[in-house]
Amino acid sequence: MADLTREIGTVLDPKWDADGLITGVVTDAATGELLMVAHLNAEALALTQSTGDAHFWSRSRGRLWRKGEESGNVLRVVELRVDCDQDALWIRAKPAGPACHTGERSCFYRIVEENNLRRAEKAL
Amino acid sequence: MADLTREIGTVLDPKWDADGLITGVVTDAATGELLMVAHLNAEALALTQSTGDAHFWSRSRGRLWRKGEESGNVLRVVELRVDCDQDALWIRAKPAGPACHTGERSCFYRIVEENNLRRAEKAL
Repeated sequence: MADLTREIGTVLDPKWDADGLITGVVTDAATGELLMVAHLNAEALALTQSTGDAHFWSRSRGRLWRKGEESGNVLRVVELRVDCDQDALWIRAKPAGPACHTGERSCFYRIVEENNLRRAEKAL
Repeated sequence: MADLTREIGTVLDPKWDADGLITGVVTDAATGELLMVAHLNAEALALTQSTGDAHFWSRSRGRLWRKGEESGNVLRVVELRVDCDQDALWIRAKPAGPACHTGERSCFYRIVEENNLRRAEKAL
């Protein structure tokens, strides 16, 4: 049964998964482009809110991670939104540089066509 | 170590998680608005590609799910993109109606301000 307080209420109450994570979706606040998807634990969410820089939990490295801590390509938070069941966070951000570790502006730089991928001509 | 074939190659090779899922992020292809986040297994991805309607795996209900199968608010696929490590799919879609089961156009209809949520005045 749906948790109506969580779904239509006015209190932040993240629905952490079994690993203590929610999904974070980052878009460029200026262009709307989808930049990246990553995960946040409670500490990453708290630091994202308190510092204004997007923080995540790296599942592959098993540690907290301030996006851009090495590359300098930080993501400054412009607005945070949460979805109905509060297991996903929308981070509208101002990127300081390419969001993808491959050097692409967005991690979603390839279009899927059947089983093939081709590079998108432009962002959107 | 990064899998370069997956990250910069031209072949679709989804990186399924331990539950056999990837993350699906749906935006309105016309407006760029983030509509919803859900998950796809291999069957959901295959059906999304073959039918042109977004399909997901419902973790709460434990079954395949064609978005809008009951409400009629289907999501017609305009373009699919995949991220660098191929564990997330960007579904740019044309929504037939409100994407959220609450009746909101987007599941992300609430702005987070500290521990409070308030309804966004407008979509973006």
